[in-house]
Amino acid sequence: MKIDAHILERLLARWPVARLAVGSGDEPPHLLPVVFVAEAGTVYSPVDGKRKDGRPLARVRAVAREGRATLLLDQYHDDWSRLWWVRLDGEARVERANVALLDHVGERLREKYPQYREVAPYAGPPTLLALQWRRVRAWSQSGGDVPLREAAGLP
Amino acid sequence: MKIDAHILERLLARWPVARLAVGSGDEPPHLLPVVFVAEAGTVYSPVDGKRKDGRPLARVRAVAREGRATLLLDQYHDDWSRLWWVRLDGEARVERANVALLDHVGERLREKYPQYREVAPYAGPPTLLALQWRRVRAWSQSGGDVPLREAAGLP
Repeated sequence: MKIDAHILERLLARWPVARLAVGSGDEPPHLLPVVFVAEAGTVYSPVDGKRKDGRPLARVRAVAREGRATLLLDQYHDDWSRLWWVRLDGEARVERANVALLDHVGERLREKYPQYREVAPYAGPPTLLALQWRRVRAWSQSGGDVPLREAAGLP
Repeated sequence: MKIDAHILERLLARWPVARLAVGSGDEPPHLLPVVFVAEAGTVYSPVDGKRKDGRPLARVRAVAREGRATLLLDQYHDDWSRLWWVRLDGEARVERANVALLDHVGERLREKYPQYREVAPYAGPPTLLALQWRRVRAWSQSGGDVPLREAAGLP
């Protein structure tokens, strides 16, 4: 089904978590939960100060290698009539050079997530995974956009 | 970090939703939320009676073609010290032939999800996506397994 551009914008502004999948050639996709902000058709997810088990991060290597990624927003409910998901597919890149962009997105992340008062938005050299989406797909169990509007905080 | 086999078993028995990613060659990974049951090192997710936008389902085609998949369990909290995820990678197949298995898993699904009193566990010819995991990875922000034990309903 189609998702209205305004609903998508509000949902991306408000929804706190998404799952990011990056292809890995012959390996299974790299898949993990991420925080993010969206701006002008691109979703940005930082390599932040949450605990990391290895470096350099597999997600950064995978994005640099593959150049494509998929982001899924969804919400589980015991009431299945309220289920929905939204999936963004597109071109992914690792952003480390554009200082103005890194600063701006860092500020947006601090606005969206008060947790960044305690956790650093960037760990080490500021790094963003950027997904410029080319295709948006949406689904709801009801077939309508009511649960999406609700998740987006719209009447 | 390592996850204890008993915690993993209880988590898979109890946790209602996961996100499944299947590679798609040159395309971005196929990614969506799924319900599931686990048994003997395999996670089973049905093609159930929830609303479908197209047939045959892209997820079934992707699993049949790729033969590998990744499953992510995680929980978002505003309290980031409680974040965790568990990821299973392995061999995936489409199961349509083993009637005893399809029946057994259908029964397990009905036990886990009371929603299957209203929604059919199988839509059309009974079909399961089966992921036999070969690798388990786990992460928690705290570095310990307390949030995983809690999510698994263990003391």
